[in-house]
This record gives sequence, C-alpha cells and structure tokens, in this order.
Amino acid sequence: MQLTGGQLIGSHKSRQGNKTFTGYRAETGKSLEPDFTEATSDEVDQAVRLAARAAKIYSQTTPENRATFLDRIADEILSLGDALISRCMQETALPEARLTGERGRTAGQLKLFATVLREGSWVEARIDTALPDRQPLPRPDLRRMLIPLGPVGVFGASNFPLAFSVAGGDTASALAAGCPVVFKGHPAHPGTSELVGAAIIRAAQATGMPEGVFSLVQGGSVEVGMALVNHPLIKAIGFTGSFRGGKAIFEAANRREEPVPVYAEMGSTNPVFVLPGIIREKGASLANALAASVTLGVGQFCTNPGLFVALHDEHTEEFISQAGKALAATVPGAMLTGPMLKAYREGIAKLTAIGNTQVVAQADASDGKAGAVMLRTDARQFVENPELAEEVFGPSTVGIVAHSPEELMTIANGLKGHLTATVHGTEEDLREYKPLLDVLGQKVGRLIINAFPTGVEVGYAMQHGGPYPATTDSRTTSVGTAAISRWARPLCYQGFPDDLLPEALKNGNPLGIWRMVNGEWTQSAVA
Amino acid sequence: MQLTGGQLIGSHKSRQGNKTFTGYRAETGKSLEPDFTEATSDEVDQAVRLAARAAKIYSQTTPENRATFLDRIADEILSLGDALISRCMQETALPEARLTGERGRTAGQLKLFATVLREGSWVEARIDTALPDRQPLPRPDLRRMLIPLGPVGVFGASNFPLAFSVAGGDTASALAAGCPVVFKGHPAHPGTSELVGAAIIRAAQATGMPEGVFSLVQGGSVEVGMALVNHPLIKAIGFTGSFRGGKAIFEAANRREEPVPVYAEMGSTNPVFVLPGIIREKGASLANALAASVTLGVGQFCTNPGLFVALHDEHTEEFISQAGKALAATVPGAMLTGPMLKAYREGIAKLTAIGNTQVVAQADASDGKAGAVMLRTDARQFVENPELAEEVFGPSTVGIVAHSPEELMTIANGLKGHLTATVHGTEEDLREYKPLLDVLGQKVGRLIINAFPTGVEVGYAMQHGGPYPATTDSRTTSVGTAAISRWARPLCYQGFPDDLLPEALKNGNPLGIWRMVNGEWTQSAVA
Repeated sequence: MQLTGGQLIGSHKSRQGNKTFTGYRAETGKSLEPDFTEATSDEVDQAVRLAARAAKIYSQTTPENRATFLDRIADEILSLGDALISRCMQETALPEARLTGERGRTAGQLKLFATVLREGSWVEARIDTALPDRQPLPRPDLRRMLIPLGPVGVFGASNFPLAFSVAGGDTASALAAGCPVVFKGHPAHPGTSELVGAAIIRAAQATGMPEGVFSLVQGGSVEVGMALVNHPLIKAIGFTGSFRGGKAIFEAANRREEPVPVYAEMGSTNPVFVLPGIIREKGASLANALAASVTLGVGQFCTNPGLFVALHDEHTEEFISQAGKALAATVPGAMLTGPMLKAYREGIAKLTAIGNTQVVAQADASDGKAGAVMLRTDARQFVENPELAEEVFGPSTVGIVAHSPEELMTIANGLKGHLTATVHGTEEDLREYKPLLDVLGQKVGRLIINAFPTGVEVGYAMQHGGPYPATTDSRTTSVGTAAISRWARPLCYQGFPDDLLPEALKNGNPLGIWRMVNGEWTQSAVA
Repeated sequence: MQLTGGQLIGSHKSRQGNKTFTGYRAETGKSLEPDFTEATSDEVDQAVRLAARAAKIYSQTTPENRATFLDRIADEILSLGDALISRCMQETALPEARLTGERGRTAGQLKLFATVLREGSWVEARIDTALPDRQPLPRPDLRRMLIPLGPVGVFGASNFPLAFSVAGGDTASALAAGCPVVFKGHPAHPGTSELVGAAIIRAAQATGMPEGVFSLVQGGSVEVGMALVNHPLIKAIGFTGSFRGGKAIFEAANRREEPVPVYAEMGSTNPVFVLPGIIREKGASLANALAASVTLGVGQFCTNPGLFVALHDEHTEEFISQAGKALAATVPGAMLTGPMLKAYREGIAKLTAIGNTQVVAQADASDGKAGAVMLRTDARQFVENPELAEEVFGPSTVGIVAHSPEELMTIANGLKGHLTATVHGTEEDLREYKPLLDVLGQKVGRLIINAFPTGVEVGYAMQHGGPYPATTDSRTTSVGTAAISRWARPLCYQGFPDDLLPEALKNGNPLGIWRMVNGEWTQSAVA
C-alpha cells in the first residue's frame, strides 16, 4: 500500500495543510519517505463533525454489528502482512519478534472486545419493574443501562506502535462501546499509523459502518491534539504518554465550556519491594530477573520497575551487586526516538546528581544506544528528594536501601500513585509485611506478589491504571475488557413500552445477557 | 438533645472559630437559637486527618460491619423523633408530612445500602485464574475488585434537609463503599445538620466504627467548603446545589496538586415534550398534572419541570390555558430561605424580560411566599436566547410553542445536559417521534415516558445524573444503589496466596457473591 502522508477523514483522504513532518529511521535518525502533512484545525473539525454524525447511527448498531467490525479490523491488520511490520521496525527500532507479538496482541484485543459485545452483559442492565399498587406511591418501571458517550478523541502512544496506537486498546474499547473515534497519530510512527488507520477504514466500509466512525489525523505539533481536545463535539479523551502531555490535555479538557473525561495514562516508576527472607533465599535469581525486567524492550514499558526497595543487610548488598552485574551485561538497544534517548540520558544525569546517589552499574553504550543503568541511594535521601521517584523512561532503576522496617514503611507511605507495585517475599515475609501490602494497595492499580510488573495481561481481571499522577482517572482501566465502560454512561428509561426499549432492556431479554432484575442477577426474561 | 453549635469532629465537639451564624425560621426570616460557629481551616484539617486515619481501619471492615453501622444510623435518626422534624420544619418551612416522608426515605436509603453490602456483588469481583502452561507465556493469577477511594468530602443540599443532607444519599453510599465522610453542613439548616450528625456519630460508636469515620463541619461562608475541597487527604467530593457552587468546587478540585473526582449535581430544567396526539386526547388532565409537578414542594426539586414544549395548534392553546389556570390556583408557599425567594423573583423577572416572553399565569403571592408562574415563548426565541433554558429554582415553568415538528427537533437538539427529559405521547405519537426520544437520550440521565420527572425513586435501576451542566460527571448517579461505586476504584491483585486476598476474591467465595471467573458470571467457588 502506498502511503499518502495525509489525514484519513472517514473514507476521504485530505492534505489541506502546509506544515509537514516525516517519520525517522529510529536506528539512525534518518528521515523516512513520504512527507506527512499536519492536520489543520479545519481537518480536525471535519473529522469530528463526521464522527458526530456517525455517532447517531453507530450508537444504534447491534452488538453483533460492532463485533463483526472489530473482528474485521483485526483481519485487515493481519493482512497488511510484512509491509506493516517492516515499516514499524524502521520507525521504532523495535525488533521483528516483538512487533509480530504486539500485532498479535492488537488483533487479540480487538477480537476479545468482539467477544465481550457478543456476550453483551457489559451494559450493566438493571430493571426495576413497576409496582402500580405500592403505597403510598406506585413505583414506575425503571430500566438502566450504559450507553456510549459519543465521539471520542484518542492519542497514540510511542512505545506500543500497534497495541496502544491507532487500533490499540483505547480505539478497540471505544469502538466496542459504540463511540466513533478520531485518532491523533503519534508523530514517531506516522507510516505505521496510516497503514493501520487505512485498515480500520477498510473494515468499516466492508462491514457497513457509517462514514466517519473512524478518522486519523496526523501531526507533530501540539496544536493538532489540542484542536481535538477542545472540539465541542468530542465527549471524552484517551491518552497514553508523558505526565506533561497528559496533564496539559486534562487541564484543557476541564477548561472547556463542557468539560469532558480524560483518561490519561502518564508516568509510573512501579516500585518493587524485595523483602529480607526471599532476598536471603533466592536473591541471585531475583537479581537477574529484576535486571531482565528493567531492560526488557530497552526499558520502554509503562510498567518498567524504575525503583526497588530492600532492607540493609549483607544479602541485600549481594542482591544489588548481582542485579548490577546482570544489568551491566545487557546489550544496549536503540530507543524509539532520538529525543527519547536524549531525555533518558538527561534523566539519568539528573538522578545521579541528587544527594548521595551512586551509580552501581552502567552498560556500555555507544552508537546512539541506551545502556542500562542502576543507581542506589538510601531511604532518607529518597524521602527528602521526591524527584528520585519520577519516571526516567528507559532501561534504568534506582535501588533504595532502608535501614529498618519502619524506614521501608515510610518509603511506601510516601509514594504517590503508580500503575503497579510489587512485593517479593517468602510466605513468612508476606505475613510479616501485611501492612506494606495494605499501604501499597492504596497507591496503585495493580499489586503484584512474586513476579515483575512488565507484561500486562489483556483479560477480564486486568486493571491498568492507578491513582494520580499515574493516571488522571483511577476509576477505569486502559487494558482489559473492563476498559469498555470508560466510554459509556448510564441512562435510565422510565415507563417505556417494550417495543421502544433497547434490546438489552426488553422484557424478553432477546440478547440473553445478565441483568439485575429487582435487585437479583439473572439471565431470565422479565415475567 | 441540646444543640452545641459547633463542629462534630469524630466524637469530639469543637468550637475554635470566632465567626458565627444562625439558622433562620424560614417562614419569618427570624434567627433561631443557638449561634453556630464556623469551622476554622484547622478544624477542617483535624476532621480530614482523623478521617484519613479512620480510613485505614474502616476500609478493612467487613460488609456486615458496615451494614450494621448503616442500619444503626437509620435507627438513631428515627429515634430523634419529633425533635428532628420540628427543628427541620422551622429551618426549612417544609411541612411535617413531607419531612416525615423524607425522613423515611433517608432511613430507607441507609437500609437499602446495608442490603447492597450484605448481598455484596457491588465490588464487581473478576478473577482470571493462572494458566501456568500457556504458550508463549504463562498467565498469572489476576483478581480485580472495587476498593474505597479514601476519605471523601460531602456537601449538603438545602432542598432535601434529610435525604440529601448530613445522612443523605452521598453519605450513605460513601460510608457503604468504605469511605469515611467529612460533611459540610448546609448553612440553611444547621440545627437539623447537628442533630443528624450526632446521630451518625452515636451509631458509629455503638457499632465499633473507628473514630473519625464521620465528622460534621459547619459554616456559612465559602472558605469552609473550600478548605475541605483543597485538603490533600480528601479523595473525592459529593455536592448537590447550584451550578455556580458546583462549578467552583469542580475547578478547585482540578487545580489541586492531586486532582480528585467531583460529583456535583447542579442545575437542570428537565424539559417536558407534550406531543400532539396526547394533547388532543387528554390535554386537560395533563395540564393539571404539569401544574402539580411544577408546584410540588414549592418547586424546589432538582427534577422540577422548568420547561415544556408543544406543537402549535388549538389543543396546545387549550393545554397552556388550562395549565396556567391550574398553576394560578395553587397556594403559594414559603421557600427554603429568604435568599432563594429573592433569587426566584429575580429569575422570573429576568425570563420575563427576554424577547417575546409572556406571562401566562401567576399565582397571587404575598407574605414572603413564592407564587407559581408560567411563561410562554416560541421556538425561535428559545433557540436565540439560551438563558431561557437556565434553571430558575422555584415553582415556575416556561412553555415553548414550536410551529413544526422540525422546530421541535431543533429545540431538542439544542438542549444542553439535563437530569431528565420527559415525553408525553400516545402510542402513535411515540412511534412517530422516535427520533425525539433518541436525541433526548443523548442529553439526560433519565428519559421518561408519560409521567412527570418529580419524584426520584431510590432503587437499583435509578439514574440521577446527566451530562454537563446537569452534573460534572455523567458516569455516576447520586440516587439509587449504583451510587456506591462512585466512591470506589478497581484494584488488581496479581499472584496473591489465597489467605492474603480480600474475602471477595478468595477461591472459596466465602461471601457468596456474583463474580466474573474467567469471563463467566458465577456464584461458585474457584475450583
């Protein structure tokens, strides 16, 4: 497929602007063909207006219609074949195996949401039947379900060019919920974005979805995204990226005449606590596993363990030394973009300059690669310098040595919101440090025992989110089937005749979904 | 019970400030004994810190513990007997029968949330069991449920001094969810607030709840509330009141270093569409019912129908004339406060001054009472003057006459967010105007056919909320059992041994709740 370098506004290709940018070969920093034209505010407006018109039709499609659409998107992406993987490898420097896996995950996510739609209970149907003879007043017939919010704007992440980009988690869940999507492509992989965007639009056409159910706007500058966030017809925003970017979007969305929800997943250092018993028992293998988790994918995961905490003793010293050795022995990799490598190096320099921070280990890095780095400091320094807990995106981690269980608890109590926290411990450790688990549970969206946070399962029970500043809304998830409800709100239908009710709320329960009828969960029809 | 006029900070009474205010006898505007002392920022801080300490214990209480607490609050309120009703009548001018009914609703809400806790499925437990042999990677054990957000701040409403005040809907749902509450009493009924606040604290003591699980701070000026909203340990805010008040709280909460969710229920004019067939068939009885709904409780309901729309014909003229007669014949009532009466009169004057607005009917009002008012205008004026759609709190309504079905749809399309919209129509009307129902569904939280919006059922299927500016968060409800989840967020437990999991997630399902296990809803244990 030939890249056009323009916007995909429904089935229409558009290149109105005169500002251009290109993708870059991530390994070398050389620019890639073709030139991409930034979307103008007029093009953003066209895409959103088309999405708003599409919403009227799309919100009324059946679950089966939408499931067919999602399945078809997955198929269209898979049928892009090597062209997609090869362009994506050039733009991101991510290896083929990783991208093939990520493509599988992307298709799997879409198909999982199709399954959720076909099962259908996600709408949380609740029915209170009329009680005409109730005293002192009759009870009306009340039926409540989730309905789509309307057209939404989604921003692509750089670090998952497939699974968290154009047809990624937020797009899949929003389309599943019945919301048209206007997608702002990440400027680090515009070719990948266009290939996938065109696949979505082919799928929409093939399955009879309304024109404008999906559009892709591209751009390297902040104005394109802000035009989307500030558009009065946009009803919610999804974003995965930096704290600064997410915060700016959150603030803009709240300043609108009609504020809208913003689901921004921002930074997280994902603290790992390694307790004394397990460090004594299997410190060496844990140290190697920590180093592997820190350097996985050149450390470019939201759940990268950027912080670990252990109690001072000789086993901890061995653990740190071994983790450092393992880390130093890793092969440096190219980062997603040149600016990210620069930010990584600056971030390490900043951390190193704080208090008594020491560099424990550093992998040799040359040729524009990012070498893994391990730093260490103590609990007092950590508590006094909150910037030690800020995310440095890349293959680094900071070890904090606490000199007492109380210091360890002080560290935990002082943490802000993170996506995950992890505790490694023997059975005895875990019993003894139960209060640590309780405190960490207040700080994160996912609390892990005896594993590492990298690797986010796409399933029913996943929660990928967490208290601010990890996200701007701890009440929803961006990964897993529960993400569908972030794009929906409840509507109560009072006194409706059966034929005017949505299928999910009709007496006969034609969709066969789970519903709460007069307070009881059931799949039965209403008598 | 003797009123102290101070704050109730856990079991401790506090009067540190030197600024005082009083309640007023609403019928006469004369001040009532005793003087109340405004909370200082230090007292607010004490209450919140105590709540934060209580949260550690309270969030770990069993559902049965919390249910017992809620039941006991209901009993303590009922056992206040006539003292509560009599003070409340003085402070609000609401009649005895209404307040006795509202007290019953308040107790009923508390007991309903106790039922929700005992049933237990509200935590939305989801379990994906481990798949250790899965290729290419094993799946870890993942278990997700809702956990309480932490200490929350709640503001009382003036118009429901019991059911939406100190022990009202937000307090009941937040305490049910496991969140300690610091309550800012409404200055229009400080004596009622103190009586109910003391009842909650007695219930907390009697059922062994932690000190500080509930506190009441009082004050007539904006600083007390803002100290609560801006306190860094407060994790969410509930509010019912004016648009201006809700917006100010929403903006302050978003400006915090850690922004927090704000559930502000603000203004709504609850448009009622009366379609041609039904107006022909039973216009007279509908007109009387509209007048009754507009003037119920001196029009002081969030769901008061402040706007109605009908198509121009002779039946509509008869309908308006009859509704006007019925309205003019109602007995004017005292409003909740003097300033509200003033605002009502100013609001009517403002509406009357717009374009071609005519006064159709006006009840005689003297002695500081609020007389019912009906205005009318046409669709063009309405579309050109959006302030005609703004809420005037009190017994008034504006009729809009549309000259074509297209004009009627234009009105519907131009509406902002409301709590409710209503359509009156024959079967034929409703089929013909299906697109009207679809449009209105996008604008509101509850869509009503052939009834009136006043009277909000407290049940499983109620949605009391709606798109902005009706509320600041259309994704939750402030009435009904679903309100419990606004105070909670999901947490995923990965790789936990069974004995460290919360009861709701243990293999054996000791609470017997509905859970989603590997994608299927079941009450069974995990094998």
